[in-house]
Amino acid sequence: MKIGLDMMGGDFAPAEAVKGAVAFLSENSDDIKVIMFGNQQEIEFELKKYSLPQNRYTIIHTVQVIEMHEHPTKALKEKQDSSIAVGFKMLANGEIDAFISAGNTGAMMVGALFSIKTIEGIIRPTIGAYVPREDGSLGLLVDVGLNADCKPENLNQFAILGSLFASQILKIENPKVGLVNLGEEEGKGNLLAQAAYPLLKENTQINFVGNIEGRDILLNKSDVMVCDGFTGNVVLKLAESIYDIVKRREINDDYFNRFNFEVYGGVPVLGVAKPVIIGHGISGENAFKNMINIACKMHEADFTGKIQNSIL
Amino acid sequence: MKIGLDMMGGDFAPAEAVKGAVAFLSENSDDIKVIMFGNQQEIEFELKKYSLPQNRYTIIHTVQVIEMHEHPTKALKEKQDSSIAVGFKMLANGEIDAFISAGNTGAMMVGALFSIKTIEGIIRPTIGAYVPREDGSLGLLVDVGLNADCKPENLNQFAILGSLFASQILKIENPKVGLVNLGEEEGKGNLLAQAAYPLLKENTQINFVGNIEGRDILLNKSDVMVCDGFTGNVVLKLAESIYDIVKRREINDDYFNRFNFEVYGGVPVLGVAKPVIIGHGISGENAFKNMINIACKMHEADFTGKIQNSIL
Repeated sequence: MKIGLDMMGGDFAPAEAVKGAVAFLSENSDDIKVIMFGNQQEIEFELKKYSLPQNRYTIIHTVQVIEMHEHPTKALKEKQDSSIAVGFKMLANGEIDAFISAGNTGAMMVGALFSIKTIEGIIRPTIGAYVPREDGSLGLLVDVGLNADCKPENLNQFAILGSLFASQILKIENPKVGLVNLGEEEGKGNLLAQAAYPLLKENTQINFVGNIEGRDILLNKSDVMVCDGFTGNVVLKLAESIYDIVKRREINDDYFNRFNFEVYGGVPVLGVAKPVIIGHGISGENAFKNMINIACKMHEADFTGKIQNSIL
Repeated sequence: MKIGLDMMGGDFAPAEAVKGAVAFLSENSDDIKVIMFGNQQEIEFELKKYSLPQNRYTIIHTVQVIEMHEHPTKALKEKQDSSIAVGFKMLANGEIDAFISAGNTGAMMVGALFSIKTIEGIIRPTIGAYVPREDGSLGLLVDVGLNADCKPENLNQFAILGSLFASQILKIENPKVGLVNLGEEEGKGNLLAQAAYPLLKENTQINFVGNIEGRDILLNKSDVMVCDGFTGNVVLKLAESIYDIVKRREINDDYFNRFNFEVYGGVPVLGVAKPVIIGHGISGENAFKNMINIACKMHEADFTGKIQNSIL
């Protein structure tokens, strides 16, 4: 299995990406190899600090870097030899099995949509976020910003994609799907939620448990929480800010410590034809290690194949 | 000044409403009187515990109560002698200057819309919520659930209504208005936010500071945070749940203690012709005291008159 990793993405490139790859590979079997995209000299300088056997990785030397602030489409077009552009080329050609970057999110999305493309039948791919729940488990909030305006059919597909990720990768059996709403009763909501409810209710591929409110997001009332990307983005960033406040106030609490979204690594793009994971800019060793782990699980479980079967 | 108070609304009726009224009146001048709507016997039983002078209150005996679960329009129609129905009748007739209830929110809204009505020019009234910020100040998030689907013009009016409330009642000078959005840059957002941005930017009645993200809600980046009622409701209930979790985990922190939304009392209905305040069902003594206080301030500042002047 060959996992592609953009070494130039994120605030601490390439040092933390190297650390994460080394940490992952040292704990996993020989048949997993990390294909590293980026500046060979910089990567080798970092790699020298560890004793990683040469058969566990390959460096694909790339000379360009897409910076965080660059316009995605323009940057990808003009920087064909960037780590992200080359990574997607090799993913599309089948030379790697998955691709991970903590770099420019927009460029990752555009790269995914134009190289490996969306799975047939998927109206819009989506990005979810992990939600640490008070009982110790993880939930999935989907969408968290990729689709600001949604149609009911989008939410219905997010529910299927999120359920598959929860069951196949997070190993939650028969995951409960909740529709984020402003009230519990059927019929409540804005026009989108009102129209999405019956679709979710009739969807036999998911275990729909009804509406959930803002107060239920941190509880385990549902494992997959479906909403439009506008609401999801506001909720996610509010939750992230809670962690910042907790740290500033020097509160040390097991639960709120789990609000450190950095540790979860990135989130997968759900609905594209191959495993693609986008990391947070501040990703550190653990985040990279976790992303490689999730990418492996997605490949092993033939996750994108399972999506294809669910949608057809 | 005569402040009408529904004594039968809320989970601890009428005991906490009585406590709140007594606490408020004992600290305020003789020209403020509380008009109490509800079961005379029950109210007097509670009042006997305190030594409130008889000239500070009047009891309007009502025999019916609109329960929390009842259908608003139906209940108001069928229970013409309920505390809420009688309260609104007297508010519409000018016999009281403001009306407060911690009872059925829907019935309070329907009562307001059909008795005192909306201020001319207001497309839709709105309800905001206080947001405790890390720096010790209070912000206002508006709308928090009354208007699940909004048009750009609605958000623009919420900004005006919220700004007036922030400046006149919360005494925030030249309050900063932010548009809740999924990114900071102009042009970001769902269709609603994209269309609302230019309206807010061109609105000379407000101090628009641009987009704010979920991570900014608990900071003082803006004092009035404008969004559709769907997003606002999810955000508010998530914030309320943070307080519950903090208490369950026995975290004692000055800032998170301020997430106890009960202490703020209710929120005013902005855009109706007279001061109307809707309290949380769990309102206790402090909440009632605060609600009476806010109602007095709204009346003294001729708050609804100021709205009228802003909209014309």
